[in-house]
Amino acid sequence: MSEKVIGIVGGMGPEATLDLYREILRATPAQKDQDHLRVIIDSNPKIPDRTPAITGAGASPVPAMAMSCRAVARAGADFVIIPCISAHYFLDELQPQIDLPVLSAFDAVSEYIVARHNNVSRVGLLATSGTITGGRFAGCLADHGIDTVLPDEDYQEILMAAIYQIKASLDPQVRAQCRADLIAAATHVISNGAQGIIAGCTEIPLELKPSDLSVPLFNPLAILAQAAVERAIKPS
Amino acid sequence: MSEKVIGIVGGMGPEATLDLYREILRATPAQKDQDHLRVIIDSNPKIPDRTPAITGAGASPVPAMAMSCRAVARAGADFVIIPCISAHYFLDELQPQIDLPVLSAFDAVSEYIVARHNNVSRVGLLATSGTITGGRFAGCLADHGIDTVLPDEDYQEILMAAIYQIKASLDPQVRAQCRADLIAAATHVISNGAQGIIAGCTEIPLELKPSDLSVPLFNPLAILAQAAVERAIKPS
Repeated sequence: MSEKVIGIVGGMGPEATLDLYREILRATPAQKDQDHLRVIIDSNPKIPDRTPAITGAGASPVPAMAMSCRAVARAGADFVIIPCISAHYFLDELQPQIDLPVLSAFDAVSEYIVARHNNVSRVGLLATSGTITGGRFAGCLADHGIDTVLPDEDYQEILMAAIYQIKASLDPQVRAQCRADLIAAATHVISNGAQGIIAGCTEIPLELKPSDLSVPLFNPLAILAQAAVERAIKPS
Repeated sequence: MSEKVIGIVGGMGPEATLDLYREILRATPAQKDQDHLRVIIDSNPKIPDRTPAITGAGASPVPAMAMSCRAVARAGADFVIIPCISAHYFLDELQPQIDLPVLSAFDAVSEYIVARHNNVSRVGLLATSGTITGGRFAGCLADHGIDTVLPDEDYQEILMAAIYQIKASLDPQVRAQCRADLIAAATHVISNGAQGIIAGCTEIPLELKPSDLSVPLFNPLAILAQAAVERAIKPS
């Protein structure tokens, strides 16, 4: 068996972890249980919130993330993926503290756009204020020749409120309002020249759908899951 | 922090594992990520099929299940739950080989019916042929004073085919046929006196819904998730 075991350092948030696992199942060619890949998940929602940590207003999530990486390594994982886009800000700090390689969603999304949508040179990035302030997703896209269009401050506030409400509530009315807010923010960056939209926080694609937009919607969780499955089944 | 860490020995099947994790999130009182419980999942779909093992026609899943229990223990789990009802047949053999306690779905469901539906003394058990042949779910219910009504041989065959099709396919047409077959099997055992239906294989509640039936539908995954959350948050 040359298949690798996928580790998920999750709980950031729990629903996004569920979604990443579902995307892995979808991305795996399988007819029966035994065709699926082994996946080890540490869903640890106690990890401190990433956005306050990035802006310097809260505790660092890195020690808890490192602990979870070691937990999935002990359980047998060969590499790690992380459903929280905001947490990717800390990868450069995290990687030297752990033995497992982390497959970065920033890299996976940038490579996917270059490989599959090479007419897209400007993307709108909808993400937490932490991810926007941190600047590393935009930096990775720039390294791949892709410009980033960001929401203005008002839309960023609306977007951030919607993300936290999606985390907090499954209420259909609350969710419908969140969805409307996400569509408004996406429309705003499209009008500023975005040729595609990155749903750059894992809560966003839970409500914003490709059919809501006039341009392609890139779901980092789905793209990351596909990249993880390819890495796991690739003969080493 | 007195909360316990829930371990899931899953992959049997992968979609049921996803469903159990979702039920844990639903059963947890939470307003933000950090209110959720830590859950460690080993989704190991390579574990041999349980039904052939029970009927003596296939390899035992116990060594692989024990390995997964040890994996989640090493990662930090305090106790284990298993989304596969058929796999519960092997608990008596598994438990002495591992250090973590397993919270049994047989116990959780039996205790739930006694506590919340004490007018139900005869339940229909829809499950894999392995679970039916093994007899241990019915035995646990009998220990709690509950009689079991089983499908006849023809309906059991239809049911078993539907379970494997749900594992294999997300195709809406295939799923609709599976749902019709499950409703037919449930109606059959209700006509034979069942006052409630246990969706006794984790694929069944993916298609059979409470509104399909004239009697209560007991979903072992939801009941097991609730029991696990209560155990995890109970002060020790």
